[in-house]
Amino acid sequence: MASPYILTISCPDRIGIVATVSTFLAVQRCNILDSAQFGDRESKRFFLRIHFEMPDDGPGRPELERLFAGVAATFDMEWQLIDAGSTARILVLVSRFGHCLNDIMFRCETGALNATIPAIVSNHQDFQRIAEMHDIPFHYLPISKENKAEQEGRIARIIEEQSIDLVVLARYMQILSPEFCARFKGRVINIHHSFLPSFKGASPYHQAFARGVKLIGATAHYVTENLDEGPIIEQEVARVDHSHMPDDLVAVGRDVECLALARAVRFHIEHRVLLNGSKTVVFR
Amino acid sequence: MASPYILTISCPDRIGIVATVSTFLAVQRCNILDSAQFGDRESKRFFLRIHFEMPDDGPGRPELERLFAGVAATFDMEWQLIDAGSTARILVLVSRFGHCLNDIMFRCETGALNATIPAIVSNHQDFQRIAEMHDIPFHYLPISKENKAEQEGRIARIIEEQSIDLVVLARYMQILSPEFCARFKGRVINIHHSFLPSFKGASPYHQAFARGVKLIGATAHYVTENLDEGPIIEQEVARVDHSHMPDDLVAVGRDVECLALARAVRFHIEHRVLLNGSKTVVFR
Amino acid sequence: MASPYILTISCPDRIGIVATVSTFLAVQRCNILDSAQFGDRESKRFFLRIHFEMPDDGPGRPELERLFAGVAATFDMEWQLIDAGSTARILVLVSRFGHCLNDIMFRCETGALNATIPAIVSNHQDFQRIAEMHDIPFHYLPISKENKAEQEGRIARIIEEQSIDLVVLARYMQILSPEFCARFKGRVINIHHSFLPSFKGASPYHQAFARGVKLIGATAHYVTENLDEGPIIEQEVARVDHSHMPDDLVAVGRDVECLALARAVRFHIEHRVLLNGSKTVVFR
Amino acid sequence: MASPYILTISCPDRIGIVATVSTFLAVQRCNILDSAQFGDRESKRFFLRIHFEMPDDGPGRPELERLFAGVAATFDMEWQLIDAGSTARILVLVSRFGHCLNDIMFRCETGALNATIPAIVSNHQDFQRIAEMHDIPFHYLPISKENKAEQEGRIARIIEEQSIDLVVLARYMQILSPEFCARFKGRVINIHHSFLPSFKGASPYHQAFARGVKLIGATAHYVTENLDEGPIIEQEVARVDHSHMPDDLVAVGRDVECLALARAVRFHIEHRVLLNGSKTVVFR
Repeated sequence: MASPYILTISCPDRIGIVATVSTFLAVQRCNILDSAQFGDRESKRFFLRIHFEMPDDGPGRPELERLFAGVAATFDMEWQLIDAGSTARILVLVSRFGHCLNDIMFRCETGALNATIPAIVSNHQDFQRIAEMHDIPFHYLPISKENKAEQEGRIARIIEEQSIDLVVLARYMQILSPEFCARFKGRVINIHHSFLPSFKGASPYHQAFARGVKLIGATAHYVTENLDEGPIIEQEVARVDHSHMPDDLVAVGRDVECLALARAVRFHIEHRVLLNGSKTVVFR
Repeated sequence: MASPYILTISCPDRIGIVATVSTFLAVQRCNILDSAQFGDRESKRFFLRIHFEMPDDGPGRPELERLFAGVAATFDMEWQLIDAGSTARILVLVSRFGHCLNDIMFRCETGALNATIPAIVSNHQDFQRIAEMHDIPFHYLPISKENKAEQEGRIARIIEEQSIDLVVLARYMQILSPEFCARFKGRVINIHHSFLPSFKGASPYHQAFARGVKLIGATAHYVTENLDEGPIIEQEVARVDHSHMPDDLVAVGRDVECLALARAVRFHIEHRVLLNGSKTVVFR
Repeated sequence: MASPYILTISCPDRIGIVATVSTFLAVQRCNILDSAQFGDRESKRFFLRIHFEMPDDGPGRPELERLFAGVAATFDMEWQLIDAGSTARILVLVSRFGHCLNDIMFRCETGALNATIPAIVSNHQDFQRIAEMHDIPFHYLPISKENKAEQEGRIARIIEEQSIDLVVLARYMQILSPEFCARFKGRVINIHHSFLPSFKGASPYHQAFARGVKLIGATAHYVTENLDEGPIIEQEVARVDHSHMPDDLVAVGRDVECLALARAVRFHIEHRVLLNGSKTVVFR
Repeated sequence: MASPYILTISCPDRIGIVATVSTFLAVQRCNILDSAQFGDRESKRFFLRIHFEMPDDGPGRPELERLFAGVAATFDMEWQLIDAGSTARILVLVSRFGHCLNDIMFRCETGALNATIPAIVSNHQDFQRIAEMHDIPFHYLPISKENKAEQEGRIARIIEEQSIDLVVLARYMQILSPEFCARFKGRVINIHHSFLPSFKGASPYHQAFARGVKLIGATAHYVTENLDEGPIIEQEVARVDHSHMPDDLVAVGRDVECLALARAVRFHIEHRVLLNGSKTVVFR
């Protein structure tokens, strides 16, 4: 019998990384199920994700981590060892458009996403009843100029108390403070309803309508303090034409947003996304 | 026996346009093969394209035009009657990337595009031999700061002398003067190698690489004096990932450019594109 | 003030149809908002869909129908006049996979589909609670060899009593009898989880896995007595690769099924689908 | 200074393969540029492709092969070591449709495909002049019931004499004998103009038209003695609708065929395709 783990590594590129890591795992009688790597010729960094099984009479996770720390130090690695059997804990933030929330909730319930939603936060009460129907605690945290810091403080507390792995802004129409963005860097995914970098900011579908584009898009990205500038994880588009009024673009866009966000969330919780400066490496 | 025609109309929207035009055609014993229309709620303009057959013992084209002019005046129509059996005449302008040129030449030769290429113009000599292989006159018109106006003058003369219907900028790396753009408005199509309005200007693939996008695109648009701002006719995208270096994006982009441009050219020569301010109506 | 209607027509092709219908509408002071047509050169039939507004001081619907009946008889038309402001009534049949059900319910609730679901029927109890959460009556109608006719009779009664416009088989894993199919011809849409005509019958994802295809698909079609042979309304595909095990194909397929089915349902309830023998005309 | 190589491996799956191979390469001072692997849980086989650089003062290719043969024997590996700097030699077979031929020739000439075409074979003379324009020897080998074996013999001789790496059936409308298929197994790619397994055999676009599908496709696959049943390498689709007559499907299909075939050819000559029984592993 064996248990699955995921090891992710980011380090300066040089000869022997794969040999060292794969030999280390073989010596510990771990069997590689799946592995992907990328050497960035530009940044000279190397990225590795290994999905492997450790036998139940193997060293065990703490010992494996202790042993690997030595290897990691040699290569100046940033690394993470994750129990692949664990279920990710997602906090969803939403305002008044519920399609992405509904989509994620359903995927969690059917197992399409290996995740649970311990809490939903909203600055509006629209989805309180839906949250209750799904037995998910709903935190109504209205926001004003005065209470912004306090409101974010309460969100941060939920993140800590609920051991949240990932915060999803499922059409959350509030800008997070630079402090919040920095504190939870690489753990907050936003869905922007345009094909970035086109149509940053507000009302992208109206901007798209005004420009007369023939495809509309959506972009899932990590949140940084620079609005709509964070590392892109996933993008999707759909064809439109001259007959689509702004409302029609919004309707078409809903499906595109749900798909792009759902894929980005899955990539993140399966630890397929590694940060590479202002970009991402995504091992599909 | 009958001959096919296309009638395109753009006019202020009001009740009775379709009734009037279709009754006019029926009275002249013309049979509608295909028809498409669009009423723009924003600009309050109405757009109509009718593909019909006139019997060979019917009024004939000059008489049909004379008769229709009366109808058109009543509705304040901009209109065009085109012999659908005629072959479009395309002038291709190219610099040093030949994939779009090759693609269009091949489509013309196989009949995928109902068009001929009476001339190719280039500011470089790279494709002289290929033009000769295809028996197409090749005009080598190098360009410098001093001779820009003269060079454009020679292009304009080719357009007039060769009765060119459409000028295609098949990766022509020169900016046309406002005068040239105005003179041939709605008759010059450019392929921009990005998903506009993202990555305007030079080196869009390098911009896309720097931003870390997950899809790259191409945009075929009418040329106006505002670079990369002209009415969009067609767009296409392709998926890329972190492993694509700028050169790889260029390679993937070639296919996307060819497809977007070929479709835009076909839409234009089949008179499926009507200008609607800074946007297009495209009846696919 | 005016009210919107949709007129759909299918008849033998001949000169003057559009002229007659559009003149008829103009005389009744009806304004055409949108119109689409298709003349099938093979079957020699003509298909027309007109979206128009009738002024509130116009003839009214019954009188318009009475007047148009005369026109229709002349051209041997099959036709339908629909109040475009009305909300479609959908009966959903489901077995044990709920993703399409959830998707349709959500689209109805948000108005993405202009429809309500007056009832859900299932041969299993899995989605009873979800139906209750959405305040939709749930009919648990288990099925066996013995009670098949009776069970279908109860479904038919629900269709009649609830004035159902459209029956959606949202992964309903039962074969309907030829009598049921004939009785509700053109009003029952099924989603088949393959790119028909590939992989008819059971376990299409396992068939797709065995064949090693690089794209998987889903097909929404009208139900006929010949399983998986009904007129196709919409198809969608998604890319997969060698690493996708059958379960992965099922997961990818869910999104594809939801999208293809949702579009087909929208096309149907917006009266964009006209039957053309064993095929469909879909005015997008 | 260093030279690039590609090592492909297929063997029974077990612990330690990656460790052994990557350690072997590190010991020989070879630097891994790119690596991809797949363990098939069904067939219990393991597939590996490693793109690496060997330093110019390293062991050299013959010595590396000699050394690796020992490793390979231990793991019962099928393997190949390829000089990644070499240019693939492609023989194109074509009948009367030239779009795929033109597409491949252009990609070879621009370097989009790292390949040359030392010969074109056809059972028709249509493309003789085009071949001459590109300075490619053209072999006109007409075929009849009587001379089929002899004609294939001449093709086989060209393959041997020209050291052909890959034979591409670019719409070659002849069925190859089982003997020929067996002799060049895994080295002959065909483009079938449908989304296999739909519409096998002749006239797939007419079959697609008759069935009323909403997407048409193309499939690039290795040729086996069972027509249209060979391992699929790549598939592509395009959207069509009710207005597409068979000729329109053919026209749309041309682009789809070119794209699917070009990608399959690139994957093959970059040694990204490994055979896995009746399926393929494609490391994109």
